[in-house]
Amino acid sequence: SVGGRSCRRLSGALVRPLLDSVDCVLFDCDGVIWRGDQAIPGAPQVINLLKESGKKVFFVTNNSTKTRKMYADKLATLGFHASEEEVFGTAYCSAMYLKTVCRLDGKVYLIGSPAMRQELEAVGIQQTGVGPDPVSGKQSDWANVALDPEVKAVLVGFDEHFSYMKLNRALQYLSQQGCLFVGTNRDSRLPLEGGKAVPGTGCLLQAVETAAQCQAQTVGKPNRFMYDCVASQFGLSRDRCLMVGDRLDTDIMLGSNCGLKTLLTLTGVSTVADAEAHQQSGCAERQGMVPDYYVESIADLLPEYF
Amino acid sequence: SVGGRSCRRLSGALVRPLLDSVDCVLFDCDGVIWRGDQAIPGAPQVINLLKESGKKVFFVTNNSTKTRKMYADKLATLGFHASEEEVFGTAYCSAMYLKTVCRLDGKVYLIGSPAMRQELEAVGIQQTGVGPDPVSGKQSDWANVALDPEVKAVLVGFDEHFSYMKLNRALQYLSQQGCLFVGTNRDSRLPLEGGKAVPGTGCLLQAVETAAQCQAQTVGKPNRFMYDCVASQFGLSRDRCLMVGDRLDTDIMLGSNCGLKTLLTLTGVSTVADAEAHQQSGCAERQGMVPDYYVESIADLLPEYF
Repeated sequence: SVGGRSCRRLSGALVRPLLDSVDCVLFDCDGVIWRGDQAIPGAPQVINLLKESGKKVFFVTNNSTKTRKMYADKLATLGFHASEEEVFGTAYCSAMYLKTVCRLDGKVYLIGSPAMRQELEAVGIQQTGVGPDPVSGKQSDWANVALDPEVKAVLVGFDEHFSYMKLNRALQYLSQQGCLFVGTNRDSRLPLEGGKAVPGTGCLLQAVETAAQCQAQTVGKPNRFMYDCVASQFGLSRDRCLMVGDRLDTDIMLGSNCGLKTLLTLTGVSTVADAEAHQQSGCAERQGMVPDYYVESIADLLPEYF
Repeated sequence: SVGGRSCRRLSGALVRPLLDSVDCVLFDCDGVIWRGDQAIPGAPQVINLLKESGKKVFFVTNNSTKTRKMYADKLATLGFHASEEEVFGTAYCSAMYLKTVCRLDGKVYLIGSPAMRQELEAVGIQQTGVGPDPVSGKQSDWANVALDPEVKAVLVGFDEHFSYMKLNRALQYLSQQGCLFVGTNRDSRLPLEGGKAVPGTGCLLQAVETAAQCQAQTVGKPNRFMYDCVASQFGLSRDRCLMVGDRLDTDIMLGSNCGLKTLLTLTGVSTVADAEAHQQSGCAERQGMVPDYYVESIADLLPEYF
């Protein structure tokens, strides 16, 4: 749809024309095809049948705690037919971003997970920083903490060992001339079952940005690099792609930013009321968070198409 | 000065009329009367002579790492005549804010220092949280971390043991109905000798605010509570007060917010060029960061007044 988005329920006779109009479907993971360690009922069948009917399917997630391999294993366990090459998480995409866009010549100071370290190493980028980094000494010691002279970029992803000392080390690296500053994503919370949530990477990134007094370049949705990364490897055409997600501010916004068709599924974070509020706001920027269509669950596609 | 601020160099014949026009002088500490562990040369003499000539003098600092007693001891060591009652740091002022403004009936979850714990306990407020809090387990464990049912407020100050688990614990408390959210201050960095800096409380507060998806009430400069706290205890009249500081965004802004006369000293963070940029911006909000006067050092007051 050009111009205003419709936010229409996708059902009955609308399903087949939409799916016939695309060659490729990009799925967010958490809240869309699974929740935590449980597949959304019917989701594996939908995705497996889409692939059998000739569609290209990709898994596009802001979560930086797993490698492509770890995602492929989880997908297989839950009954999805998927290969590593179809998975685009921010651990992998950040490594690709540093290598192909930044053409980084040096090491990374990594606030992140062992999975991020693996993806960096897989593209030949050395890193330092994974694991606990407890504080010791006093302010003048912190300001003069030992730095690796080969570090030329700071990369911030999800890190359960985030600490004052890591924040300080990032500030000291970013105070050096020419140091790159990249974040995986800005999600403020990771939602869990039962309405609970834990702090997301956006919190850690905000802390480092406040210290550094400058903004990081982020790789994850809604920034278009995630889509560009898939499109360049598989030769996609944006007007033949559908982006499916549960968050208006990341998934649907990515689709809008890249000119894809968009489908909101209600098994995760955002609601139809959220989408309608954006639609009725009269704010141009918020129109990008209005999906073309919504479904209760991606399982609703099953009886209509197959 | 009513309306526009002048940002004039305070020297020669201007010193006596300004000091004669006030009964009370409020000094920021770091960058104004000392730097790190060294007194600014001449500062002790100026402050001691101001007091001998009958002025009330107060020390007003956003630093939350020391109790009033610890500040009084440091002041004495560096040659300043000062008592505990003249010191208003954010450790003390946050405790007063929770007790007198919030009328807190419950415990505090404290991201902060042992000094903050002492000041809370001194006004009868119980707390939990000081010291290391390393991560363990997985996401669902973090979301269900044990909480103290008596906690009714989260207070964020400087904490070198800041960690992901503390951030998470703050989020879980703030997700409870009616939990208060207070921060000591928003300073993004603590400047050190030689142009170096370490991350300030503002970084930690931003991380917690991003997780909680709401803003804390802050106690420190430029919020007027710090001045109100001094004024209510000592019966000050705002048009007979001078605020002296090295930062335009905290010290001078506090003075403007409270209707005090303001003096920038150039021994710390801000420059005359910074002040002139605010003055010439045409932005109403930035006029509050233009001081009435500036001096190279508060020692420059010495030959002119005494």
